[in-house]
Amino acid sequence: MSFIEQLKFTADGLIPAIIQEHRSGRVLMMAWMNRASLEKTLETGHTWFWSRSRQKFWMKGESSGHVQVVRDIAFDCDGDTLLIQVEQAGAACHEGYQSCFYRSATADPPGVRVTEPRLVDPGQVYGKA
Amino acid sequence: MSFIEQLKFTADGLIPAIIQEHRSGRVLMMAWMNRASLEKTLETGHTWFWSRSRQKFWMKGESSGHVQVVRDIAFDCDGDTLLIQVEQAGAACHEGYQSCFYRSATADPPGVRVTEPRLVDPGQVYGKA
Repeated sequence: MSFIEQLKFTADGLIPAIIQEHRSGRVLMMAWMNRASLEKTLETGHTWFWSRSRQKFWMKGESSGHVQVVRDIAFDCDGDTLLIQVEQAGAACHEGYQSCFYRSATADPPGVRVTEPRLVDPGQVYGKA
Repeated sequence: MSFIEQLKFTADGLIPAIIQEHRSGRVLMMAWMNRASLEKTLETGHTWFWSRSRQKFWMKGESSGHVQVVRDIAFDCDGDTLLIQVEQAGAACHEGYQSCFYRSATADPPGVRVTEPRLVDPGQVYGKA
């Protein structure tokens, strides 16, 4: 039986997918899948998601070339979250950072610090300023 | 300005929090916070969540003793997901595994494999079979 039968999708048919770089352990991003995008992910070996705002499928890297090659798909005890190990080409974040989690909270003073260097200029990748 | 002002909560006032063991990089669990539970997390240095099913706050480890000490709180480019680095006491998963993501999909044959040893007997921790 496929593991998909053990998953619990939301009322909207979605499940959050945490994407982790399999060598470094760096968490790159979190995005939403539905059953069909998960099946496309399994079939193609690339990560496919469902955009809630645009109501369409999207493949990570389809605009930027920064695709993700899937190495492992794990799911949690409740069956309502996926953890996907990938090989990431280039920067995962559309802001040009390796990880979308490039900012951390600071305590004193309360604020934000950037925790990694920008790898690429988003304007050059996505053709916008 | 606190980083909280840069976060986007859902219509229900929630934000997903990915919990990662800061030394090993192992992703332990994903759970939901609201603004108040995030503020309790900041104040106490332990992870506090909001249970959607029980509509109440819960501190990780309040039943099991398997608390999480917060080391870093990062947030993603869209401001709608948290990534929290912790020191985990004992097993993060109520099933007795270090991580809630103790199962991975297998391709051939399609199925599921357990990828880590069980650390503790859930019955002994939570007093149930």
